[in-house]
Amino acid sequence: MEQKWNFKPSSTLLDASSLSVRGVLTRIMGHIETDTNNPKPVIPLGHGDPSAFPCFSTTPSAVDAVANALRSGKFNSYAPCVGVASARKAIAEYMSQDLPYTLLPDDIYLTNGCSQAIEIITSVLARSGANILLPKPGYLFYEARAVFNGVETRYFDLVPEKGWEVDLDGLAALSDENTVAMVIVNPGNPCGNVFSYEHLAKVAETAKKLGIFVIADEVYGHLTFGSNKFVPMGVFSSTVPVITLGSISKRWVVPGWRLGWIATHDSNDILKRAKVVDSIKNYLDISTDPATFIQGAIPDLIANTNEDFFLKTVETLKTTADICYNKLKEIKCITCPSKPEGSMFVMVNLDLSQLGDIKDDLDFCCKLAKEESVIILPGCTVGFKNWLRITHAIEPSSLEDGLDKLKSFCKRHAKQMN
Amino acid sequence: MEQKWNFKPSSTLLDASSLSVRGVLTRIMGHIETDTNNPKPVIPLGHGDPSAFPCFSTTPSAVDAVANALRSGKFNSYAPCVGVASARKAIAEYMSQDLPYTLLPDDIYLTNGCSQAIEIITSVLARSGANILLPKPGYLFYEARAVFNGVETRYFDLVPEKGWEVDLDGLAALSDENTVAMVIVNPGNPCGNVFSYEHLAKVAETAKKLGIFVIADEVYGHLTFGSNKFVPMGVFSSTVPVITLGSISKRWVVPGWRLGWIATHDSNDILKRAKVVDSIKNYLDISTDPATFIQGAIPDLIANTNEDFFLKTVETLKTTADICYNKLKEIKCITCPSKPEGSMFVMVNLDLSQLGDIKDDLDFCCKLAKEESVIILPGCTVGFKNWLRITHAIEPSSLEDGLDKLKSFCKRHAKQMN
Ligand SMILES: Cc1ncc(COP(=O)(O)O)c(C=O)c1O
Ligand SMILES: Cc1ncc(COP(=O)(O)O)c(C=O)c1O
Repeated sequence: MEQKWNFKPSSTLLDASSLSVRGVLTRIMGHIETDTNNPKPVIPLGHGDPSAFPCFSTTPSAVDAVANALRSGKFNSYAPCVGVASARKAIAEYMSQDLPYTLLPDDIYLTNGCSQAIEIITSVLARSGANILLPKPGYLFYEARAVFNGVETRYFDLVPEKGWEVDLDGLAALSDENTVAMVIVNPGNPCGNVFSYEHLAKVAETAKKLGIFVIADEVYGHLTFGSNKFVPMGVFSSTVPVITLGSISKRWVVPGWRLGWIATHDSNDILKRAKVVDSIKNYLDISTDPATFIQGAIPDLIANTNEDFFLKTVETLKTTADICYNKLKEIKCITCPSKPEGSMFVMVNLDLSQLGDIKDDLDFCCKLAKEESVIILPGCTVGFKNWLRITHAIEPSSLEDGLDKLKSFCKRHAKQMN
Repeated sequence: MEQKWNFKPSSTLLDASSLSVRGVLTRIMGHIETDTNNPKPVIPLGHGDPSAFPCFSTTPSAVDAVANALRSGKFNSYAPCVGVASARKAIAEYMSQDLPYTLLPDDIYLTNGCSQAIEIITSVLARSGANILLPKPGYLFYEARAVFNGVETRYFDLVPEKGWEVDLDGLAALSDENTVAMVIVNPGNPCGNVFSYEHLAKVAETAKKLGIFVIADEVYGHLTFGSNKFVPMGVFSSTVPVITLGSISKRWVVPGWRLGWIATHDSNDILKRAKVVDSIKNYLDISTDPATFIQGAIPDLIANTNEDFFLKTVETLKTTADICYNKLKEIKCITCPSKPEGSMFVMVNLDLSQLGDIKDDLDFCCKLAKEESVIILPGCTVGFKNWLRITHAIEPSSLEDGLDKLKSFCKRHAKQMN
């Protein structure tokens, strides 16, 4: 008789990874031709990680801060579940610089990157029957975690014609008494937009009217280079309770260090009374922590980073965004509805009717990988079919090379007009 | 009209943290008298983290390995979801030294400590209606994660009179067609026991008969100092599919570094065919990773650790276990059913009938903290009410001091016999 095993896989889990940027990119990378004698260099316009490029390398003082914390021998032990006290204090002060009031160390919870902050927040919201409102296009990690936790997701539109602002009427129409929160990502992934002060004020008013909290993903905070400056959502926390998620991944260009945070802006004690704060602490009790010495390095990492480093990164992003925007204008089947003003990405529309043998955005990206070794993220991965998300945050010369290859790919596949 | 917010907390989550060692220890620590002029030094016999004690400090070569990886600048980027290739290879080789066959790099998945390995495995097992078998007493993090994921937990006994061996008949009786896996922790937490080769062989046979996988938590692997040597469960993977969880936290005494792994022992491709491997990979796609440079340090960390360091740690544990066992013998209301042979703990029975004003194990630990500043974990936190888990892995002189205080506490609270 054949041996039987009782285990059966969860279909939720087997489906969830199609919602992962990394999962889809890995699949697209599989199409790269590697068996030729003269393989083309891979040009990665797919993911948001410029750390390998010299023009984006992190500041030496950040490396020193971590090395010193490690060498001190003081941070080899387990950390408190909420995080190392000195790091909570440093992040509270860092964030308070941009706020009209002061965050306290107790408002900050350290996480293993912003990813774990998302994981924690979606777990905290998890209650059977609850739903959350997510932006479309958006960062699908929220959907993946929410689905896995059994929280229903609903999608409000970001409107390309309005610089990717939130469709607030549509948002209100989606909401019901089981809607517990909405998520905004600002500066935007995948859209590269930056919300104005006025728009964020309207978001806050709308959320208040609906009785829902605002989760503000500000992992790209401060990375802005257009006319709208970065305004943290916490500014509006006297209107609506705000939970900010952040990390050092993007501003310090060290996504591999895995240090992020949750900040509760709760001047009116609403989150505390609603037991959101207890729920966060309890979830932290049963989850893993960021490395203690990396937490221990945070006070020095923040204090010793020179403003010049931040300025240089933003300057470089402005340069790459300009290159990208201008080069894309030359490609007929691609339209960019608005010039990127923040983060590392631009969202563009793909006009399939102009292309001969391309089925959809995924097919486009797979063939592009195969023929040109250029990697781009298909819009389906951010909830916007037949659009593309292009990362401009790479070395400028490679970016130009990649966009030229994209252009010749599009030409080659253009429908023969007759 | 008062503003209403839709959020309601999840009671599962609000309850889950009572299953956390750290949660309970924090509560007990709250009883320490800090407002006296002459506060007693806190003696931490509660948790398994000796890294702060000089006699247990990690090897300098491990610190160098991490510092070098950080300084190299090669590990600032996001890592692959499954882990950095060189680290997977190094761990596969490290584990294969103790196995009759060779693990491949693809059998290893890197995690943020063994805690995240537990989180991942319980998530992978999650399927509505599934149940898993956990040891009692045990490490309640499994229960907390399983409950949170909606997996039912059932408890098999570890038998104190038999050196904490698994009650295999009881185990079989608990199991049904929805039982997908059983967990063993070896060397044991909280019992300090080490399973013999023969007993593990019987565990494997029983699991096979029941059609369930074995999850072997070997986070204390190699930390043995009695007559039973450490035998990895993977040795029996031709009988039953084994999933081993491990980390550098205990053997290298660096729990704050957060580097662990899952290893699938799957010589017969059963885990692969059952889609356990796919499920693990998919869950990794939607979860956070250990810091990339700590992963990158693993090959050197393993290669450069001198055998002497391991021997010294085990020698020190043997010394502290002996001190603990001998001192406990002098305390009338406490019985230790078997001498610890591994890990960092000993489980002892508390005879409440000999004590005058102590309600239960938790009350005992709270009063002990208050009166003596000695921290001990109540058995309720490991599923064994009115027992105590005592950590002996601290500086020997403090350990003696702590146990003397425990003794005088017990004397002071002894029932007056008449
Ligand atoms: C919108 C958004 N949130 C969160 C994250 C995760 O950030 P971290 O690297 O800090 O985990 C990303 C990463 O790309 C992101 O784009
Ligand atoms: C049995 C057991 N498993 C797992 C862990 C977690 O280990 P790590 O520090 O690697 O996350 C512990 C920690 O004490 C433990 O005792």
